[in-house]
Amino acid sequence: MEANAEQQIAELARRFLPDVERSLREAVEAGGELAPMLRYHMGWENLEGTPTRGGGKALRPILCLAACEMSGGDWRDALPAAAALELIHNFSLVHDDIQDGDETRRGTPTLWHLWGVPTALTAGNAMRVIADHTAGALTAGGTTPDVAQGTVAELTRRYLEMIEGQYLDLSFEAAERVSVDDYLDMIGRKTGALLESAMHMGALVATGDHATAQGFGECGMRLGLAFQVRDDWLGVWGDPAFTGKAVGADIRRKKKSLPAVYLFDNVSDEERPWLEETYRAEEIEGERLDGVMAMLERLGGDVYVQRIAEEQARQAVAAVDALAIPEESKQLLRAVAEFFATRDM
Amino acid sequence: MEANAEQQIAELARRFLPDVERSLREAVEAGGELAPMLRYHMGWENLEGTPTRGGGKALRPILCLAACEMSGGDWRDALPAAAALELIHNFSLVHDDIQDGDETRRGTPTLWHLWGVPTALTAGNAMRVIADHTAGALTAGGTTPDVAQGTVAELTRRYLEMIEGQYLDLSFEAAERVSVDDYLDMIGRKTGALLESAMHMGALVATGDHATAQGFGECGMRLGLAFQVRDDWLGVWGDPAFTGKAVGADIRRKKKSLPAVYLFDNVSDEERPWLEETYRAEEIEGERLDGVMAMLERLGGDVYVQRIAEEQARQAVAAVDALAIPEESKQLLRAVAEFFATRDM
Repeated sequence: MEANAEQQIAELARRFLPDVERSLREAVEAGGELAPMLRYHMGWENLEGTPTRGGGKALRPILCLAACEMSGGDWRDALPAAAALELIHNFSLVHDDIQDGDETRRGTPTLWHLWGVPTALTAGNAMRVIADHTAGALTAGGTTPDVAQGTVAELTRRYLEMIEGQYLDLSFEAAERVSVDDYLDMIGRKTGALLESAMHMGALVATGDHATAQGFGECGMRLGLAFQVRDDWLGVWGDPAFTGKAVGADIRRKKKSLPAVYLFDNVSDEERPWLEETYRAEEIEGERLDGVMAMLERLGGDVYVQRIAEEQARQAVAAVDALAIPEESKQLLRAVAEFFATRDM
Repeated sequence: MEANAEQQIAELARRFLPDVERSLREAVEAGGELAPMLRYHMGWENLEGTPTRGGGKALRPILCLAACEMSGGDWRDALPAAAALELIHNFSLVHDDIQDGDETRRGTPTLWHLWGVPTALTAGNAMRVIADHTAGALTAGGTTPDVAQGTVAELTRRYLEMIEGQYLDLSFEAAERVSVDDYLDMIGRKTGALLESAMHMGALVATGDHATAQGFGECGMRLGLAFQVRDDWLGVWGDPAFTGKAVGADIRRKKKSLPAVYLFDNVSDEERPWLEETYRAEEIEGERLDGVMAMLERLGGDVYVQRIAEEQARQAVAAVDALAIPEESKQLLRAVAEFFATRDM
């Protein structure tokens, strides 16, 4: 099943991505003075302006265009929405790198690290406005102005949710305690909302029908949660051979992902002082790391986190079950959802 | 004439601003978790959430709504565009404060100074997306979807220009030499573009006619330049009793505004070494300051800068001269333009 889903996603990518990349490259040229920095960030050029292989996985555009096609549309009509999503995603990466002080991304120096925070901040804002500009081209592809407006409104709404999620994530870092529900709400916004808008927009462009679009949107949101929760699982229990990270990587660096949130939510009063002391260290290593991993296992954290990923995958599929779309589309979404919740890397 | 223009602007403000502020307050509530920070930035609340007097001059909304009315529309139809402009302006202030490291604005601590750079950056982005959200409400007021889309596209285009202007401004700070033309191009984007979109959008909502909208847009752009160049003039030769700044304030802090740009563009080869040495100091004070001020006077900088402000004001009026709008509207714009170019504070 998994290999099958991967093959099917790869097949979608093969069909969609050349046009997505063409749209993105056209869009970025609107950046004028800032275009070289944006091309560098997109991974298309090195610092000397020489073309590189570059480019990301473009998960959001693929899901957007797939939703358009599954609901009976011509996927090319949704290209402006798909490109806008990828640009917004990249805008948020530029600002994330500033916020986190990350000096490299995909193995190359980040914009702020090369050009300083003020300029990188401005470049991120340019990427963001280019996304708007791109989405504005929806009507050129035969989409009516009111459907185009509804599509842009959906993008705006979910993008605002993403920002709220980023804010909650920042405030959780400083918080004493975060509940599992609060955490899922946060990642639903931070990661789920943009995938929600991806599938919602694709279906809306295809059908102009809000109920269909909402079903696909719900599916995208749940796929996003399944993807992120599995990511959290992999960050602690992933096989280093696949993930490229040490076992317990997210525990080592004290990341407040779902396993840690679950742990603090369920640790006994007797063990809490030990756990809190452990998390006051710069990094968690050696016996302390073994102790936290053992505690998580004792409390069933592994099973709990994985069960949430799979539950979200199930809900993703359920969201489109009542829609009048071809059975093979539902099967594809089922395969994608299962893949998101069970992938090894 | 000046007092008259001020009175007329005050009269527009009296009519428009209560509705603008109502739109802004409604819009900011969409910020959800971030709304309290945004209300604080807007000057409506203090840190405890207690209402304060607050609020800015709202020049952009006033010009937007005035352009709508002058070209025959109901100014209320343009309220979403006017509110969006003010939100974008405020978004850029939040990010500007981060970029410049400014710890206070309007006498109160800035967002990044209170909540840190990552959170303030996110709050700025939220302000930006709320602006989009607000502009999306244009159709609710009877504006057709295609005019609404054209209006939003204009805002996006000019906003991108503003970002390019901010980028150029940052790169000028590091540049050896900047020509007067480059400088005017930069402020045309950084300050002019948003005022251009203000008047363009107002007229477009009123008429749906692109030629009329472009005339008003050109007027807005020139008004912005007149305003900014006069600002540059006031920063060096303004009367401290009106500006609240010391004489030569912008020379003291080595600001690369038009007077300094003109100076470096026109200084003789003999005097250049002295000038460059002077500008290598942290601040320019005492005899050095007197020397720079005298050099500027000798080179006619005062007259030159003021002439550019007035030339831009003239072009602002010329841009609407051929349009079929009432004579009293043209007179009002003439008064506003002259006021912008000759105001004392």
